[in-house]
Amino acid sequence: MKKTFLDVSDIKLLEKQKRVHLINSLGGFKSVALVGTKSESGHLNLAIFSSVLHIGANPPLIALIFRPSPPERDTLRNILNTGFYTLNHINETIYKSAHQTSARYDSNVSEFEAVGLTPEFKNDFQAPFVKESVIQLGIAFREKVDITINNTIMVIGEIVQISVPEDCLSQDGFIDIEKANTITCSGLDSYHKTIRLDRLSYAKPDKEITSIFSIE
Amino acid sequence: MKKTFLDVSDIKLLEKQKRVHLINSLGGFKSVALVGTKSESGHLNLAIFSSVLHIGANPPLIALIFRPSPPERDTLRNILNTGFYTLNHINETIYKSAHQTSARYDSNVSEFEAVGLTPEFKNDFQAPFVKESVIQLGIAFREKVDITINNTIMVIGEIVQISVPEDCLSQDGFIDIEKANTITCSGLDSYHKTIRLDRLSYAKPDKEITSIFSIE
Repeated sequence: MKKTFLDVSDIKLLEKQKRVHLINSLGGFKSVALVGTKSESGHLNLAIFSSVLHIGANPPLIALIFRPSPPERDTLRNILNTGFYTLNHINETIYKSAHQTSARYDSNVSEFEAVGLTPEFKNDFQAPFVKESVIQLGIAFREKVDITINNTIMVIGEIVQISVPEDCLSQDGFIDIEKANTITCSGLDSYHKTIRLDRLSYAKPDKEITSIFSIE
Repeated sequence: MKKTFLDVSDIKLLEKQKRVHLINSLGGFKSVALVGTKSESGHLNLAIFSSVLHIGANPPLIALIFRPSPPERDTLRNILNTGFYTLNHINETIYKSAHQTSARYDSNVSEFEAVGLTPEFKNDFQAPFVKESVIQLGIAFREKVDITINNTIMVIGEIVQISVPEDCLSQDGFIDIEKANTITCSGLDSYHKTIRLDRLSYAKPDKEITSIFSIE
């Protein structure tokens, strides 16, 4: 297998879009989801994020990264103004519509309408869920962390509502997101479904790892 | 499809390990990689991380989240003391060994040796790469961000060395990490390979998305 090697000066010399594609691919497969919000004046907004990050389980915290540029600006403003947003897993049926939400629509355009996804209001939650999404989370804003090194913003929220298919939930709490048809992405624009290799037992020194059969 | 619904009080009532599994599954598929470090006294360390996050392409920044608890403590200390670490993609051949690095080995034990992976020193880089890994990154520490809300730490580094198979690199800079057999994970212990659905064109309002054929 022939390898390509790039050092810091090679990376600096790359043409801008090429570097964006390259660096975005390097972190591995990414969590990708649709973030639904409602503005104070009632406009709905939907945006795809590939920077979803688990921060902790107690309290249940999840983070998103916002770049300084649009089109995520409506989402950020709505989160900060209203305090609530939804996070909706993307499946094979809706990934093209999900990708289309990254187009720079005007603030008064609902991406739900523009891309053909259905806003769903339920359980007294203030922000719209995506009806076509199989796993839906309601999030309450908790903290904004400024990442000064490149002028990005991390928004941390607490998971306050969870809606998952009953048959994807294991006895031990694990959710089989592959069974829920959740997909992953790599780079800026590549979408992938998955095939489970295994669930592995908790690792301990001098103990062999075994396979876990999760769904009982 | 019957759904299970949990609100904030249901989540709080979950038994601790069940909540850990549940919340870890909710963010979607995660970037997972092996982080290689060398201590000031020369001990090698290798640890699996499922909190790898792309932060930006210019400069090329990538982040890791560290929880307050071990076993990641050796990795964090080595990064802060030496300023350098490696990030190595995990493939189907090595994912069980990679998972085993999460066992709480003593500081003086090299996880490379304990799990049977090979440290590789090259290109004058101070930290060990994983020889069995197909995509290898050399990272220079740049910034530590304290996430006070749950006492975790985000470590941001700059990608200063990249080693990828030549035939996985596209004209436009995109790296076909699926072709490089990079895997993804979900929850604490579930590993998955991927099947590409498509690469999609840059989204614009009133323009239909098309398929990109990436590898030329």
